[in-house]
Amino acid sequence: MLSSPIAPTPEPPYYAVIFTSLRTDVADGYGETAERMLELAAGQPGFLGAESAREKVGITVSYWESPAAIRAWKLHAEHVLAREKGRRDWYRAYKTRVCKVERDYGFEAGDEALNAQPVVKTTPNS
Amino acid sequence: MLSSPIAPTPEPPYYAVIFTSLRTDVADGYGETAERMLELAAGQPGFLGAESAREKVGITVSYWESPAAIRAWKLHAEHVLAREKGRRDWYRAYKTRVCKVERDYGFEAGDEALNAQPVVKTTPNS
Repeated sequence: MLSSPIAPTPEPPYYAVIFTSLRTDVADGYGETAERMLELAAGQPGFLGAESAREKVGITVSYWESPAAIRAWKLHAEHVLAREKGRRDWYRAYKTRVCKVERDYGFEAGDEALNAQPVVKTTPNS
Repeated sequence: MLSSPIAPTPEPPYYAVIFTSLRTDVADGYGETAERMLELAAGQPGFLGAESAREKVGITVSYWESPAAIRAWKLHAEHVLAREKGRRDWYRAYKTRVCKVERDYGFEAGDEALNAQPVVKTTPNS
């Protein structure tokens, strides 16, 4: 259900939650919980997709249909518990940013038209 | 100038550009150009910070004071050339999403107040 590494989001506007984190050395339970949270998020109403990578810093971006969908996920009991454990054990620091995606552009190699000019999808007022 | 792995952004609202990409196997010039682009971006008016990680997918988020600052950086001649080379050589696919950050929350371990309750900074209408 998270098979595409670049989330196949619809035309803007939609919403993004950027979660940037620095881990502690505590590994216990982290991987399982991170996987479980993505699985749970993907089952929430309004979830559109997610992207994730970690090197020095970890960045997970999840995409949502509406601010209401983000609020509902934030209040999900299992997610609340995981965040508490994250603050206690797994993270040295993190920042969560809630955003409105106003426009986006895509590119895929092999599509000649796209190679010449990336697809630009803008909202009328952008 | 990008010393903090979590970008020290000001209170919202501000703007984010989420660049998610899949690389080709072409390495030639990529690292130098990626580094140069971050350096150049950091010198642009309105640049607030950036965060980056790559595993299966690469995610770079840059933060900006205004949509005008993002547009000006998009039109920077060296950046335009780098994007063309990116589409020709370095990327199988990418997506660029331009966002307004409406609220954010931070956490740092060791700060007891923050441990008990993460800092919540919201804009009045969020």
